Amino acid sequence: MPIRTRTTVRRKPERGIYDAPTIEAILDAGFVCHAGFVEDGQPFVIPTLYARVENRLYLHGSPRSRILRPVELGLPLCITVTHVDGLVLARSAFHHSINYRSVMILGSGRVVTDPEEKEAALAALVDHVVPGRSAVVRGPNTKELKATQVLAVLLNESSAKVRTGPPLDDDGDYSLPIWAGVLPLRQEALEPIADPRLASDIPLPEHLRRYRASTLPSS
Amino acid sequence: MPIRTRTTVRRKPERGIYDAPTIEAILDAGFVCHAGFVEDGQPFVIPTLYARVENRLYLHGSPRSRILRPVELGLPLCITVTHVDGLVLARSAFHHSINYRSVMILGSGRVVTDPEEKEAALAALVDHVVPGRSAVVRGPNTKELKATQVLAVLLNESSAKVRTGPPLDDDGDYSLPIWAGVLPLRQEALEPIADPRLASDIPLPEHLRRYRASTLPSS
Repeated sequence: MPIRTRTTVRRKPERGIYDAPTIEAILDAGFVCHAGFVEDGQPFVIPTLYARVENRLYLHGSPRSRILRPVELGLPLCITVTHVDGLVLARSAFHHSINYRSVMILGSGRVVTDPEEKEAALAALVDHVVPGRSAVVRGPNTKELKATQVLAVLLNESSAKVRTGPPLDDDGDYSLPIWAGVLPLRQEALEPIADPRLASDIPLPEHLRRYRASTLPSS
Repeated sequence: MPIRTRTTVRRKPERGIYDAPTIEAILDAGFVCHAGFVEDGQPFVIPTLYARVENRLYLHGSPRSRILRPVELGLPLCITVTHVDGLVLARSAFHHSINYRSVMILGSGRVVTDPEEKEAALAALVDHVVPGRSAVVRGPNTKELKATQVLAVLLNESSAKVRTGPPLDDDGDYSLPIWAGVLPLRQEALEPIADPRLASDIPLPEHLRRYRASTLPSS
């Protein structure tokens, strides 16, 4: 059991996991996080893309994005990533649950100002969603770099919470004639839809074929 | 254009939608939200199940859940629901995006104390995930009702944000020999896994067969 910190899992502590490889694997399996920040006492939770590079999570947005000001002021953030892996169907309503993997990160963000780090982070944001994509697209120009703010958040204060496996019913309920089990859920990619303005001689690139077949992050 | 409020979409205002049917449809298509609250200035964002009943969102949790105290104190919450519908692959890194539907709700919650409302909300929470399920499972007993807190949040202050369609590239980029388009994503249900302790003569119920075939919420 780790020392109790702000990210120590309190509810269902047996589901809490604190090792970096588990946390990183959950982050790497998705690309949309929910970022929380506070403005005049009001919390806001916004969905946004992210990429992980080593022990940092990168987010990006417009210079007018709401999240930028709390970061500039050094105010605390909370970033949560959740994958829903299945519905847990118990014999009792009470023991219904969800199989999931989630990570919660607390920390104040930092606006990335170093041009090299910023460009690397933006490439990582593209590649985190579709590995290999940043190398084949037109990279950001000066105007676009100005129009994009990149934020970095350290993973120092983070924890994972995971539930797997079948429902856990009360002893007395196992004899009830009620179907119980797990309905696994997974995110799947459908057939790619070419841009209506795409020239007909441009084939679907390998990184998208691969994506369809196997490298799909679940989220 | 609505009067500017705290839920008025500021970034990409053309993606903001404020009519109740759109907001309700997005909420009804999912079952996991990210609930944000503030504790000593620190935002927390936790994934949790929800159900919508009329103009109310219901959440539930343990009486020791972290979200309960801010609700009892009347502090503001932010609840966000996001469905990722596809990867938008542009010719430039800058115009990469995500097709999504999201709803953000601001408001202070209310602890549901009325026994009838509480039982109805708990049934709605089960049925919101698997329609028809609450009628066939063992309902909550007195001890379980005591061990469960139900929160209600009004949808009065909410907005939706939606992106659909192909990438929008800069005029000069359309001639680049780069594949562009959308990779649609969808949550799919796999084959149900029966609880290892399930008696072999209990068949898969109709509400789970239907679920697999067509009623899957995307999230």
